[in-house]
Formats: sequence, structure tokens, C-alpha cells
Amino acid sequence: MPKHYEDIGFAKVDHHRQRRKGFPEVIYCEGKIPAQVAKIAQTIWAQGDSVLATRADRKMFLAVKKVLKPAQYHEVARIITAKKKADSRKPKADSRIAIVTAGTSDLPVAEEAAVTAEFLGLKVERIFDVGVAGIHRLIKNLPKIKESKVVIVVAGMEGALPSVVGGLIDQPIIAVPTSVGYGSSFKGLAALLTMLNSCAPGIAVVNIDNGFGAAVMAYYIVK
Amino acid sequence: MPKHYEDIGFAKVDHHRQRRKGFPEVIYCEGKIPAQVAKIAQTIWAQGDSVLATRADRKMFLAVKKVLKPAQYHEVARIITAKKKADSRKPKADSRIAIVTAGTSDLPVAEEAAVTAEFLGLKVERIFDVGVAGIHRLIKNLPKIKESKVVIVVAGMEGALPSVVGGLIDQPIIAVPTSVGYGSSFKGLAALLTMLNSCAPGIAVVNIDNGFGAAVMAYYIVK
Amino acid sequence: MPKHYEDIGFAKVDHHRQRRKGFPEVIYCEGKIPAQVAKIAQTIWAQGDSVLATRADRKMFLAVKKVLKPAQYHEVARIITAKKKADSRKPKADSRIAIVTAGTSDLPVAEEAAVTAEFLGLKVERIFDVGVAGIHRLIKNLPKIKESKVVIVVAGMEGALPSVVGGLIDQPIIAVPTSVGYGSSFKGLAALLTMLNSCAPGIAVVNIDNGFGAAVMAYYIVK
Amino acid sequence: MPKHYEDIGFAKVDHHRQRRKGFPEVIYCEGKIPAQVAKIAQTIWAQGDSVLATRADRKMFLAVKKVLKPAQYHEVARIITAKKKADSRKPKADSRIAIVTAGTSDLPVAEEAAVTAEFLGLKVERIFDVGVAGIHRLIKNLPKIKESKVVIVVAGMEGALPSVVGGLIDQPIIAVPTSVGYGSSFKGLAALLTMLNSCAPGIAVVNIDNGFGAAVMAYYIVK
Amino acid sequence: MPKHYEDIGFAKVDHHRQRRKGFPEVIYCEGKIPAQVAKIAQTIWAQGDSVLATRADRKMFLAVKKVLKPAQYHEVARIITAKKKADSRKPKADSRIAIVTAGTSDLPVAEEAAVTAEFLGLKVERIFDVGVAGIHRLIKNLPKIKESKVVIVVAGMEGALPSVVGGLIDQPIIAVPTSVGYGSSFKGLAALLTMLNSCAPGIAVVNIDNGFGAAVMAYYIVK
Amino acid sequence: MPKHYEDIGFAKVDHHRQRRKGFPEVIYCEGKIPAQVAKIAQTIWAQGDSVLATRADRKMFLAVKKVLKPAQYHEVARIITAKKKADSRKPKADSRIAIVTAGTSDLPVAEEAAVTAEFLGLKVERIFDVGVAGIHRLIKNLPKIKESKVVIVVAGMEGALPSVVGGLIDQPIIAVPTSVGYGSSFKGLAALLTMLNSCAPGIAVVNIDNGFGAAVMAYYIVK
Amino acid sequence: MPKHYEDIGFAKVDHHRQRRKGFPEVIYCEGKIPAQVAKIAQTIWAQGDSVLATRADRKMFLAVKKVLKPAQYHEVARIITAKKKADSRKPKADSRIAIVTAGTSDLPVAEEAAVTAEFLGLKVERIFDVGVAGIHRLIKNLPKIKESKVVIVVAGMEGALPSVVGGLIDQPIIAVPTSVGYGSSFKGLAALLTMLNSCAPGIAVVNIDNGFGAAVMAYYIVK
Amino acid sequence: MPKHYEDIGFAKVDHHRQRRKGFPEVIYCEGKIPAQVAKIAQTIWAQGDSVLATRADRKMFLAVKKVLKPAQYHEVARIITAKKKADSRKPKADSRIAIVTAGTSDLPVAEEAAVTAEFLGLKVERIFDVGVAGIHRLIKNLPKIKESKVVIVVAGMEGALPSVVGGLIDQPIIAVPTSVGYGSSFKGLAALLTMLNSCAPGIAVVNIDNGFGAAVMAYYIVK
Repeated sequence: MPKHYEDIGFAKVDHHRQRRKGFPEVIYCEGKIPAQVAKIAQTIWAQGDSVLATRADRKMFLAVKKVLKPAQYHEVARIITAKKKADSRKPKADSRIAIVTAGTSDLPVAEEAAVTAEFLGLKVERIFDVGVAGIHRLIKNLPKIKESKVVIVVAGMEGALPSVVGGLIDQPIIAVPTSVGYGSSFKGLAALLTMLNSCAPGIAVVNIDNGFGAAVMAYYIVK
Repeated sequence: MPKHYEDIGFAKVDHHRQRRKGFPEVIYCEGKIPAQVAKIAQTIWAQGDSVLATRADRKMFLAVKKVLKPAQYHEVARIITAKKKADSRKPKADSRIAIVTAGTSDLPVAEEAAVTAEFLGLKVERIFDVGVAGIHRLIKNLPKIKESKVVIVVAGMEGALPSVVGGLIDQPIIAVPTSVGYGSSFKGLAALLTMLNSCAPGIAVVNIDNGFGAAVMAYYIVK
Repeated sequence: MPKHYEDIGFAKVDHHRQRRKGFPEVIYCEGKIPAQVAKIAQTIWAQGDSVLATRADRKMFLAVKKVLKPAQYHEVARIITAKKKADSRKPKADSRIAIVTAGTSDLPVAEEAAVTAEFLGLKVERIFDVGVAGIHRLIKNLPKIKESKVVIVVAGMEGALPSVVGGLIDQPIIAVPTSVGYGSSFKGLAALLTMLNSCAPGIAVVNIDNGFGAAVMAYYIVK
Repeated sequence: MPKHYEDIGFAKVDHHRQRRKGFPEVIYCEGKIPAQVAKIAQTIWAQGDSVLATRADRKMFLAVKKVLKPAQYHEVARIITAKKKADSRKPKADSRIAIVTAGTSDLPVAEEAAVTAEFLGLKVERIFDVGVAGIHRLIKNLPKIKESKVVIVVAGMEGALPSVVGGLIDQPIIAVPTSVGYGSSFKGLAALLTMLNSCAPGIAVVNIDNGFGAAVMAYYIVK
Repeated sequence: MPKHYEDIGFAKVDHHRQRRKGFPEVIYCEGKIPAQVAKIAQTIWAQGDSVLATRADRKMFLAVKKVLKPAQYHEVARIITAKKKADSRKPKADSRIAIVTAGTSDLPVAEEAAVTAEFLGLKVERIFDVGVAGIHRLIKNLPKIKESKVVIVVAGMEGALPSVVGGLIDQPIIAVPTSVGYGSSFKGLAALLTMLNSCAPGIAVVNIDNGFGAAVMAYYIVK
Repeated sequence: MPKHYEDIGFAKVDHHRQRRKGFPEVIYCEGKIPAQVAKIAQTIWAQGDSVLATRADRKMFLAVKKVLKPAQYHEVARIITAKKKADSRKPKADSRIAIVTAGTSDLPVAEEAAVTAEFLGLKVERIFDVGVAGIHRLIKNLPKIKESKVVIVVAGMEGALPSVVGGLIDQPIIAVPTSVGYGSSFKGLAALLTMLNSCAPGIAVVNIDNGFGAAVMAYYIVK
Repeated sequence: MPKHYEDIGFAKVDHHRQRRKGFPEVIYCEGKIPAQVAKIAQTIWAQGDSVLATRADRKMFLAVKKVLKPAQYHEVARIITAKKKADSRKPKADSRIAIVTAGTSDLPVAEEAAVTAEFLGLKVERIFDVGVAGIHRLIKNLPKIKESKVVIVVAGMEGALPSVVGGLIDQPIIAVPTSVGYGSSFKGLAALLTMLNSCAPGIAVVNIDNGFGAAVMAYYIVK
Repeated sequence: MPKHYEDIGFAKVDHHRQRRKGFPEVIYCEGKIPAQVAKIAQTIWAQGDSVLATRADRKMFLAVKKVLKPAQYHEVARIITAKKKADSRKPKADSRIAIVTAGTSDLPVAEEAAVTAEFLGLKVERIFDVGVAGIHRLIKNLPKIKESKVVIVVAGMEGALPSVVGGLIDQPIIAVPTSVGYGSSFKGLAALLTMLNSCAPGIAVVNIDNGFGAAVMAYYIVK
């Protein structure tokens, strides 16, 4: 049994999290230097069987790669992953989620969600660029969306897509506002407010650009 | 020919506006006392042939009614109107506009727009309560909407309706955010930002709850 | 089979929603007059088998009661409910959710969630007043919380409770910020931001004071 | 007849838009990489007869130019255009619009509007640098402004120009706040609020720096 | 010679201010109870020769009147004044200021400025309701405005008037935003930002609705 | 030994707090009904030896008084207190704190701090109305301020007083912004920001109007 | 006599401003390219006898220098000036103003004010780094401040200095908030709000970092 | 005895501060150039016996090092220190404070606090990375925290840590929000609001990222 946590000076790695929360501590890389990311990754790896690091740039990946051979970099998603063995958590039919985006510029956030969800063993259906300005694209993809247990809807600018999807399906929706936009989008604030005020039932919201958080929420729902 | 303007102490009534802008000065009643509203109404009437007062409560109407017999009160719209003669500006087929609302609570703003538009000689099609949470209601009413020259879309809460309508028609849309909502709707701010950030083309926005302004903009477009 | 929707002038009642979303259209009462609420309730009742109206004051209830004998008023929750028959959707063991509040002042929002959830057939465990200032109260109630499928956490002021709960359990958490507080709580904005920025995984957020929305989200997850 | 839309992986190109909205899908380049812009441009071109891409930098243009020989770059406007044949939509006398700016720093936004409008077949009268600090410059240009069907007014800083123009003409005005300014201009927020609160009738507003949106709105009005 | 200040428990009356600042301490009544206002007024009066109290309601006036017979109430301005003798500070030709308002609803703030200025011995020219929507009213009154030493411009809503006046005259302008407006005027914030960002030279701004502060600033300039 | 906490349905009274934090749970009355306040007060009293309830109106006091004879109401401070015996925690010379206000309108907040501090056994020096507009009043009172262990500075409007005091003394300062002011004071936000940005060393800040919190902080420092 | 204005394509140079406002049009360089700045400078110079350009970087200066030999660059102030002859407007004793700063980091804004004021013929007393954290530095310099006609007070962070100065002198004060600070200074917002809410009489405020505007206001007052 | 202050042109060095405030003037480096920092450091050193400069980059350090041999650079903390002799203020047992952080990314702010505190003679216990998502790490470290006189709690994102710590200990807590986070953290605003609204007693807050200010406050409390 691992120690509850391990103190490496600048961090206290929470080995107990796997047990308490169902998956290991995740490394949020922003504001850390590559050496710190690598050290934490190594420490988690020593006691666990997988590593996930989000908001990682290529330099951080290279630092991790040096100490953790199996590390892989998902460029668009800005995620580093590593797994000790072929995953025992194989995606089952009933762990399918859909990730829907309003536009192409929302891809990095959508991929952060997708890569995280796949890391957690979910099966991901990607349905990108079906924003409300061309609603037939959404309607056409409804059947695929309805086969999912949970739907993650990613949108920037006015962020209206979750409301429209929410009027058409009866799955729980996790809405992710993105910072895509300009002017009075105020870096995602407009989309965030839109989603929080949605009058369609069955929508909950995570932080702006928080693809990771949406995937984890989906994982807990599906589990 | 009327004087350019008339000074009545607390106000300078702009008789020239009819000529410059195509309709007489309009009385914005908030922050005025009933006696002031009545006096301004009387002054406009003396030189022109109609009066329009917005954001008027019943007390203001009674004060106006005393000095201006033909005055009428439109309760939901909070508007006072008066006209000297049967309107020469009869609504023509090609002056039809649609006023579309997301919900029932948006009615006062929608009616402010409708009564103003009718006062200005437009023909108004009212299509209320077709918000995105039940999008078939909107689709069903699309033909009527498409017959209009201009569409005014009124919505509170997340304010997503103009974006959806904007993806479906090729008329100019005037979006009116309303203060309907609670919490992070911040009295209409959420809806306002949604509308300003709409990625559907052909939408322009007026102030929160500004049904009057939307109607005037429609009037200038149709004219 | 009911019509898709029914036009009663100021509203278009969406009879199709039961089918599309799993439960009938819900009446959001704010900004409506009692007569409108009653008329909509009556129209839904005529075609469906239950009615739910939120943000209802006592006057609205009395108006509904006149036309809908079985209507009941839940005072703290500000909700009107009516059901045609004893509910076939009896709460099952596996439909249990917990509603947790930080303080006593959060009760109205928590009750809005609880009454809605019970209306939708969920079994509700109420755990009130376990805010972080006395964390042993929370720890003591953890076992009950862990038996739930979903946990709704309701908190005003600094809104830190979801983060702390989120570090201790592996159920999905729906966080509801409330407008309880003063000064720089800015009517719930502080709690809202706290919850959106939570670094505990598995949390999604609904609008300030939106107990109803949290319950519906829980319903979709449990379903 | 083109397919409704075409799925190219990261995007679903909406070929149906020409029909539904009167002009083809427009590429909003921010947040996309040059290769994506080029691919989308190529896909639109294959089915349609023109391409318009906004917020494009020179790198994106070069990527497009490789796959689309007729592509042209409008540097100040940051727009890429391409047309298959000499435009059948020749600007007619009655499609004249005016684009008015408060200052020289507003040029990029004004040119985005002008190039878009010309692409859509409108005739554009450019009247630049006539801000309210030297109002005789505006007065002098009023006759030219009054000959237009629609007036687009572009202004940063305090954004007062639309109000002043709005008091003098009876054409519909589309106000475009720009992010020109510093300090409490808050990147265009001050100008945006000014324009939304204008007490001159006949003004509607688009997003900060949204020259494109203003031109499209003008196009729908003139059409 | 008066004491520097006098301690009356809940307040320390600053008798020294007359000397230091040129006029006695002024009572800001909001947040005080009538008895406190009366007590402070009485204390100032005992040592000085005049009293000025702003933001006073009628109840406060009655409380003051009881202990200070010469007290007068200026209803629109919400000001109480009292003077021991006919003012030695008779308004001279060269102490003339103009107070200009955009609309009728700005009157209370304008009158607060006017009554304060007259109390301080200035000669006040009132020019009300000359907002930019009817700019000929302003032009007509320019000569009177140009005869003043200082111009106070009071405006709510979009607050554009100071910019326009600032382009036409070479007197210093004190701009007073008012809370007149609705929706995105955000209780005067829109007007405040407009005035702070004015590109016309020679404008400085005071707090929203601060007619008193504008008058004092004018007094110091004229002095 | 008391139970850790006691569940009275709508609340879980934290009897353990006395031990953990040095004083009993405090009742924050806003958002509670009088019956709830009385019930909580009674429950605390049954196990402890004193009761403190803040933000209490007179109705709440009367409800408490019925079940708790020794209850006293401090009107300006809006506080209810009750103590079982003459306090053993008699104020000692070295427990002296100063409470300094900028103006008379800050009294309710200052008294909330003062009554709380006295309840906790501190000796309180009240120095009211010494704002920066008449700085000699402050200078005169410096000696008394310097004899304190901690200084609480209460100010609304621009909130500059803590900065000035902070430049003159070497005691720790707890700054309390108040909601006194209007317009761009934004209900205390201006004062809050001023205090947070103070360049004088040795200042920490509590929530707007949070006199209670300032007193508790002072208590912990002095203790 | 010069033309009213001269159209150079991207700008309309306002030759009439000298006459109307007492000094020539000033070039605000931000958002312009060096060639535009140079062209406007040249055009003003051709008709007038001096040039002032603010917010100019060194590249802009070099472009101007090429076409305008007498041009000088004031680095800290980021200003370009040029004058045809030794100034006839020699600073007189009665045109003295003081420019006071809270800290060293406020220098660029203070110098923008100082260089502008000197360009306009005022005599400037610089009193830098006398912030409220060491108030004896301010007191020591009071006599020099009191000899001025107008006092410009420049401060960032909490921006309390104008309030303190305002309590001590009876000259008009122009307060300039700067963007100096971090965190909750929000780029000058904190200082701006402090100054707008000052309870010291005789203060008016200009935009954040607007040293130029403060100098022009001072010039109009002194004139 | 040193002069009260020394004027070096761009700054007035406050030699009196040591005496008035207990330690010498501290140099806040942001917005200054290296030469200015070096000159001020030299001036303080000439009269005092130590120098502290915060927010210093390496260039500034090198400039200081040239004129002040004993200068040392604390990289993570971005602080320059210099002391004339081995400190007489040796940390005593009763001057122990704890500095607690929520995460690793909060280190720079925590180190700014730690280095400042040590410079002032306090003994610092560093307890890093014990955020609420893994609360057992905090619980484990409680004994060390409870041995401190004052606890500084540093946290970004949702900033909930001070509330949780505040419920568990009876030492005064100084809460430092950091700008760590993204999206709706709004550069530390979310954490700041959380801390200001904490319902745990005994917490006061300093500016976002203000580790220095927290340490000085702790110093005054401990002293």
C-alpha cells in the first residue's frame, strides 16, 4: 500500500488519490518549471501505474520523457500521458460519451477533454464544428449524440450550443465555455454566462477552457 | 413651420425632430415626474400631430390624459400614445416586421417594441415564447418570420435565440436582450453578451430591455 | 398523442417535452402574473399528468389552486406541484442523491433542489449546515454522502464546500452557488467563481440559486 | 446542388449557407492554423464561387494562395478574398453605404467592414477621421452620408460619434465600437456601452472590432 | 479663532476647514439619521456663518429647521442651506459658470451643482436639455456657454455631451455622469466611462451624480 | 464535555467551536427567520456560556429575548449578546485596540466591530470621524491610536484612511471597507480595492462592512 | 487663414482647432504607423507653428524627424514636440502648476503631463515621490504646492494621494490615476475609483495614465 | 540621526521609515529601471543598515550588485537583500510563523513572503502543497501550523484553503490570493473574493500575489 502522500519539497504528491478518487493525482503544469513537472511525474509513476499531466508544453514533455520512457505527448490537447501496461480499463459500449464543439477553434479544449476521457477508459465520439449558425449539421449528428451516456459541449463566442443541444436530448450535458472570441467575449466570460443561464434543463458548467474537468465529471457520471 | 425647439424650462422640446428624423421627439418618462411628462406631451402635441411616451406608469398616463384627451395607455408596453387623425401611415404589406420572444416573461419588452412599431406605421407579427429549449416551436413559425422585412428577437436569460434564428433566415435581425433571469444573468448582461458575440451573421443589438429602440431601428430599415 | 405545442397567446406550451426530455415543461414563474401561471399550469395539466412551477409566490399558488385542485405549495422551496396519480416513479434505492448545504441561510435553494428531485422520483438525503468552518460536521456525515449516486452541494459566501467535499468522495458533484452573503460576495458571484475554479475533480456548476437546475441535472445522471 | 455540408475532420463546411443566408460560409481565422484555413478555403471553393476569410494574417494568406491562385490579401483589413468570376453582383446606386470613423486608429476595423461590404456587392463611401472633437469635419460630410442607405459608424475611446450622427440623419446606423483607447476604455468596453446607451434613435450595435458583422448587417438591410 | 475641530461623539466637526479650504465643512447626509444631521449643523453654525448639507431628505431638513431657523430646503437639489447674513460673496460678472444638462431627468444632479455653486457665491447660467440627439439646441446656446469661466456638463445614458461641448469651446469642462438610464447604463457607469475616455481636450470628471463636487471644483477654478 | 455538534434540523450547532477557535459559534442572522435565530441561540446557550448574533434586526432580538432572558440588543451594531456570568475575560491593559472611522456614516460597521471586540474581552478605544479630508483630526488622535495593540480602520467612499494611518504607526492594521458612498463607490468596492492596494506596510483587509470579522481578527492577534 | 481641415486620406487634419481650442490638433500615436504619424505631423506643421505628438515610440520619432527637422523626442514622456520659433508664450509667474507623484513608477505619466504643460506655455514645478506612506515628504513640499494655480496629482496603486492633498490646500486638483500596481489594482481601476470617490472637495479626475489630458485641463484653468 | 528623507530627483528616500515603521523603506522594483533601483538601494544603504527590494528581476540585481557588494538575489522570491552585519534580530522561538500553500504553482508568492519574513527576523516554517483536494496532507501538518504565532495561507484558483485552515486553528490567518489559475479565476480575483467572504473567523486578506505585504503584517503581529 502506498504512503498517503510523499513530500518532495516543492510538492506533496498525493498517492492516496487513486483510492479516494478512482484515479491518480493529475499534474497541472501551468506555473511549474519542466524540472518540477518531471520530478512529480516520476514520483507518481514510482507508486502508481499511470501519469497524466495537463497544460503541458513541449519542453515539459521532453523533461518528462527523459525520466519516464513511456511518456507520450498529445500536441493539440497539450497533455502528457504514460501507462505501465495495456489498460485494463478497456472502453465498454456503455462508457461512450460524445464531445461536441461549436467550431474548429474550440479543438484544443475539446481534445483536452477527449484525451483525458480516453485516459480514464471512456469511449469518445468526436463531433466537431456543429455550431448553431448551421443547425442542420447538429441535427444530422443527433443520433450519434443520443447514443452517448454523457455529452460534453464545447463552445466559445456566444456559447449557445449547449442550450440548443439541451433542448433536443435527455442525456446530462457538461458545458465547457472556451476563450475563443474577441471583444465582448471577454476571454470566455460571455460563453460562460450563456451556459450558466441556459433555460434548457440538464446542463452543468465547468471553468472556461477546462476540457480536463469536463472529462473527469463525465467519468464520474459514467462510472 | 414649427420652431426648431421650444424651451419650457426643465426641457427644450425638439420640434425639428419630425423633419430630421421622420417622427416627433419621444418622451422617455423614467426620472421625470407626471407633471413634467404631461407638460412635454402637451408641448409636442401643440406643434405636431402625435405623441409617444415610453416607460410610463399609470400615474403619468393620468396626468397626460388630463391635458391630452386622445391619449391611450398600453399597459404591458408601458407606453402612452396619442394621434391627431387616423394615421395616414397605414401599414403596407411591405412594412411587415416580426417580433419574436424566447419566453412569456419577455412580453413587456416585446410589447414596447410592438406598440412603438405600430405607432410608426409598421405591421407587426407577434411570435411569442419560441425559445431554444423547444426548438420545434420556432421551426413551425419560420415561414411567418421569413415573410417579414426585419425580425426583432427578444430574449432574456442566456439570450441564445437570435443566434439560432440568425442561422435560419436571411433577414436583418435586431436582437433585444432582456433583464429576465436571475443570478449570473446579471440583469440582462448575460443575454447582451451572448447577442453581441453571436456567430450567426446579420445581427445587431440594442440596449437591455430597449424594445423601443429596436422598433425605431426596424422602422428606419423598412422605410 | 399530444400536440407538439399549444399556443395560448402569451405562451406556447411545449407538450412534446415529456417525450423529448423525460418530464413535462416546467413553469418558471418570475416575471409572469398569477393569471398567466395558472393558465399555463392548466394547459399542461390538460395534456400531461403533472405540473411543476418554480419561483412561485403564494399569490401564484392561489391562482393555480383555483383551476387545479391537487396543487400543493412548498413554501420554503417556492414551488407548486401537482400530480394526477400516485407517482409510478417510486424512488428506488439506486436513485438516492444527497443535498448538502454549507449553512442554514442556503435552505430555500436547497429545498428548491430537494422538492424538484422528489417530484422527479429521486430519493433525497438532506444534509444541511455542514460548512467548512466546522469540518467535523461534514466528516461525520460523509458515509451518508457516499451512499448517494450524485451529490448536490449548496453554498453561499465563499462557496468552498464543494471543493472540500470533492476532495473526499468519488461521486459526481453538482455545485450550486447561492446569493447568501454581503459585500464582496456580490450576490453569489464570489461563490460562483470559487466553484468554477475548484481544483477538486468531478465538479460541475449551475447558476446562482438554481436549485431546480441542479436537481434536473442529478435526475439525468441517475436516470 | 451541393451537399448540405462536408466533413473534413476538424470542420464541417456548410455548403448550404449560400442558399440559406445569401452568401457562402465565411472563415473566421483566429485560433486556426494556416493549414486549416487553407483546407477550409479549398473546400468552400470547390463547391461555391467565392471565398472570404477574416482575421487572417499573412501566413494564412500564403497557405491559402498555394491552393487557391485567385486569392487576394487586404492587409489593413486582414481579409483574404477570392472570386471565380467577375462579380455578377455589381454595386448599384441603391446599394450605397457609408463607413464613417472617428479617428485614424479605427482604420483596420473600418476596412474590415469596407472590404466585406464590397465583397458582398455593396458600394462603399469611406469617410474617415470625423470624430466629435472637430465636429465641422462631420457636418461637412453629412450630404455624402445622407445619400447612403445604411451608415456604419466606427469609433473607439468614448465612442460618441454614432450618437451625434444619429441625431442628424434618418438612415439606420450600425455602430461598431473599437478597442482603440487605453486605461478606462477597457479595450472597447467604454465605446460599446456608450453606443448601447445612445439616446439617438435608429442605432444598433455589433461586437467590439466587428467590422465584418457590421458589413453583413448592412448587406441584409440593403438587399 | 475657532478650535481646530470639535468632538461631538459620533463626529468631529472640522472648524478649521473654512480657513484651509475656503468654505466650511459640508454635511453629507446619506447614512446619517436626522438627529445627527441637526446636531452637526448646529455645531458648524455655532462657530461659522453658514451651513450646507447635501443628499438631505425632507425629514432631515425638518430636524435641522428646529435647531436652525434660517435653514432652507432646496427640494430638487436635496440640499439644506443656511446663512447668517446676506452673503458678502456677491456673484461677480467674472464668476459666471454654466451648468448644461443632456436631459430633463438629469435635473436633480444639475440642481445639486447649481445650488452649491450659488451658495459658494458663483453666478450660475442653467442650460438644460440640450443633449446630442438634437444638437441644434446646443449650438443655439453656445454663446451663453462661452461667456462662462467654467462649464459643468451633466449627462446620463451614453454621456456623450461633454465630448461634443469639449470640441466647440475653450473653457475648462467638468463632466458629471448621472445614473439616469437603464440596462447597460449600469447606473451611470456607461456615462462615466464615456467621459473619462473623451478625446476632446479640457475635460475632467467627478463621481456619478456628484453635482456637489463639480460645483466645488468650479469654485476653486473661478476663485 | 459538550457534543461536537447538535443537529436541530435546519442547522448543526457547532458546540466544539469554543474549544477549537476560542469562542462559541456566532449566529449570522441574515437570511434566517426570527424563529431560527432564537432556536439556534437557545441551543448554543444550553451548552455554552454566551451567545453572539450579528446582523440581527429588532424582530430577531424579540424572538431571542423570549427564550433567552439575558439577551441584550445593540441597535447601531445590530448585534444580540448574552452572557451567563460577569465575564471572566476582563479587558486587560494589554488587550486594548483602537477602532478608527473616516466618517459618521461608518458608525454601524464600527460599532459591529466594537461590540464584538468587547464581547470577546478586548478593551476598545473608539476614535470616530477622523477622515483624510481633515487630517489634523487624525494627527491629534495618534497618541491614543499608538497605545493600542491593533488598530481597526473603518472607511467608505475612497477608503484612503488605512493607507494614511499605516504610514504613521507600527501596529498591525485591519482595514474594513464600508458600503458608504454612491455612484462609482459601487457599494464599497472602491474602498475595498483602495485598501487591498495600499502601499503602506502592515495592513490586511476584511470583507466590505465586516466589522465582526475585523474584531475577531484583532482578538486572535491580541490573544 | 488656414482651411478648416485638410483631408489626407486616412486622416482629416483639423487646422481650425488652434482657433477653436487655443492650440493645434495633437497627434495620439497609438494604433498609428510611423508613416501616418509623420504625414499628419507634416500636414499640421505646414499650416501651423508647432506640433505635439503623444504616446510616440522612438520609431515614430525617427519618421517624424525625417520630415520635420526641429522635432525633439522626450523619452520618458513618450512625446514628440516641434516649434517654429522661440515660444512667444513664455511661462509667466501666474501660470505655475505643480505636478505631484506618489511614487517613482508614476514618472512616465507625470512627465507626459509636464512636457505637455511646458509645450502649452505653463511653468511646471515637479514634486515626485511624496506618497502617503511617508507623509512628511508631502508636508515638507506643501509650500511649493500652494504657490501653484493648479495641482496635478499622479498616483497608482491605491491612489490615495489626491484625497490627502485635497484636504490640505485650496487649489483645484486634477487627479491622474496610473496603471502602476498589480493584482487587484486592475491596471489602474483601483486608483481611478479612489480618486472619483474622494471626499476631499476640489478634485476632478482624468483617464488612467492620461497625463496629457491633465495638462490640457490645467492649461484651460490657468489661461 | 539620518535626515527625514533624501531627494535624489526621481525619488525621495524615506530615511525616517526605520524609526516610524520599525524597518527601512522597501524598494518596489516594478516600473523602475535598473539604474533607479540601484541608486535608491545605494541611498538607503548609506544611511541604514539593510536593503530589501521586491519584484526585482536579475538585471536589477546585477545593477544593485555593482554598487552594493553584499547584495544577494533570491530567485524564486524575486527579492534582493543586503545586510550590513549579521542580523541582531535573530529569530526567537516565539517569532515563528507558518507559510502554507495550496499548490506548487504558488511558490513564488510564498517565497516572497518567506524571504521577507526572514529578512525581518521571523522564523519561517514552510508547508507547501497542502490544498483542499487532498485534505489529509493539511491535517498531517496541523501540529506544525499550530505552533506558529501567525499563519500565512497562500492559494490561487478557488482559494478555499484559508477557510479550511481557519476552521481548524485559533491563530490569526493572513490570506494571500495568487494569480495562479485560468479562465474564470480572472488572474486571482476568484481567490481574492473567496478569501474576503470566508465564513471562518480570524482571517484577513492582502492583495493578489502580495507575499511581501503578508510577511510585513505577520511581522507587526508577532513583534
